[in-house]
Amino acid sequence: MTVSLDDVQRAAERIAGRVRRTPVIPVAPGLTFKLELLQHTGSFKPRGAFNRLLTAKDSGELTGQGIVAASGGNHGLAAAYAARELGVPARIFVPETTPAAKLGKLRTLEADIVQVGSEYAEAYQAALAEREETGALLVHAYDQPEIVAGQGTVGLELLEQAGGFDTVLVAVGGGGLIAGIATAIGANAQVIGVEPAQAPTMHRALRAGQPADGSVGGVAADSLGARRLGDLAFEAVQGHHVQSVLVDDEAIIAARKQLWHTYHLAAEHGGATAYAALTSGAYEPAADERVVVVVCGANTDPSTLI
Amino acid sequence: MTVSLDDVQRAAERIAGRVRRTPVIPVAPGLTFKLELLQHTGSFKPRGAFNRLLTAKDSGELTGQGIVAASGGNHGLAAAYAARELGVPARIFVPETTPAAKLGKLRTLEADIVQVGSEYAEAYQAALAEREETGALLVHAYDQPEIVAGQGTVGLELLEQAGGFDTVLVAVGGGGLIAGIATAIGANAQVIGVEPAQAPTMHRALRAGQPADGSVGGVAADSLGARRLGDLAFEAVQGHHVQSVLVDDEAIIAARKQLWHTYHLAAEHGGATAYAALTSGAYEPAADERVVVVVCGANTDPSTLI
Repeated sequence: MTVSLDDVQRAAERIAGRVRRTPVIPVAPGLTFKLELLQHTGSFKPRGAFNRLLTAKDSGELTGQGIVAASGGNHGLAAAYAARELGVPARIFVPETTPAAKLGKLRTLEADIVQVGSEYAEAYQAALAEREETGALLVHAYDQPEIVAGQGTVGLELLEQAGGFDTVLVAVGGGGLIAGIATAIGANAQVIGVEPAQAPTMHRALRAGQPADGSVGGVAADSLGARRLGDLAFEAVQGHHVQSVLVDDEAIIAARKQLWHTYHLAAEHGGATAYAALTSGAYEPAADERVVVVVCGANTDPSTLI
Repeated sequence: MTVSLDDVQRAAERIAGRVRRTPVIPVAPGLTFKLELLQHTGSFKPRGAFNRLLTAKDSGELTGQGIVAASGGNHGLAAAYAARELGVPARIFVPETTPAAKLGKLRTLEADIVQVGSEYAEAYQAALAEREETGALLVHAYDQPEIVAGQGTVGLELLEQAGGFDTVLVAVGGGGLIAGIATAIGANAQVIGVEPAQAPTMHRALRAGQPADGSVGGVAADSLGARRLGDLAFEAVQGHHVQSVLVDDEAIIAARKQLWHTYHLAAEHGGATAYAALTSGAYEPAADERVVVVVCGANTDPSTLI
């Protein structure tokens, strides 16, 4: 089940025209942002969702039963968006604790929303049961090959857009994005995973030699709130020697405010986490190092930016 | 005093490296945004300011007395930013009614702020008097050739970035931006000015056959609040047959919210005004028309986006 560069390249062909080729912007000498927060639904997640759905459409796995997913956040929005665009129904299982604002966004995407349990794990179990019962296609938030390959298209675009760079900083939750980007970038640059200190899935996996459950918390938990790194992500980050750096909540909050005040970008906390590695000094580039930061999510309450 | 394409091209060379080459993003079939709201200080204004200051530096007009400008808004921020970057002092005259938040931004740019009178005209007169007294360089908000040529670099970038387009929609206040863009674009595409119905400087000038004072109001008045079109702008929009379309406050507010909810862009009302021509139907493109919208300002209270 290893995801290859070829898989990412085929994903890029498959989802072309369905997702936005988000721009990059050089913001300072040696520093470029990839503006993935401008993607449809406000995060990178539609890349993987479209690749999963379109692959399943070709193979006949995607039927009139549509899709199921578990998420009250970015993944749910992306899965519902992709399903709507492809004309199939989406049933999204969300924890009963999901805020009304996020439910409202899901409803505008015409998803059938089922509230169940008090946390993600229960919603996920309900989605699995639904798949068994109806034959709907399960769209995982990060640990499916098509999802990883789809997220990796961010990396392919960077190679074309950013004009030579040494390092890419990427936020890590379940690891779908960093796994895909590491696969796409290969030996062209180093890829660094940036994780909230309160939800260090990759850090923990690298220490333990395998993904392991842990607690989740902090300001970015609504988007970087996986309990463990995905198996596919673990394989990819090991294979590509991806390192992890940790940032605390204070650093994430400061980076998010700086993205707004200096760069006029309205990012969510998870979307500002990669940048926090630079602003906090958790990652210190060499003097001539060319760094790309993936700013990957905009689903935030803008009144908290200032 | 006509501004020529050559002037714009020389401005682009002069300000290269000082301003951001802001990206474009195709957002729908036939529709591309120019993300000029991601410029330094959150608006296109540094382009003209740097061109004015660097031209004056070359000619010896920019001395240790620095610059003066009148503005409590985007122009003041841009002039103060350019002066700080070039290491000369900036004295910015602002109306006493300028909100504390804007004064705070100006102070972070190390400008010397003088509050005078109740409206822009009085601040401008004070800036003129200061120039007479000290020999500081006056940086006008729109009606100087270097300012128009600098703003026109947005148009040159569009010709390189947007890959063929028929129409550019640009918000109009004093007219510096549209004059520069019309000069840069020439016969390559049509340029349409979009104006708040409560501050239609270009519409009024085209009807009267010359710029004429009028009242100013509406939600975008903090950035599109000039009382009359600049003389240079009038010459440019006449020479390039630029048309005006009007949008009301309701349309501007709706366009700004759509920029946030659909495209994850936090624009100010003036920055959303060009887009309002599309969302309101004030400008209706043909079925196959390729339209670019310049989203030109981000200096907004983000808590009012939702």
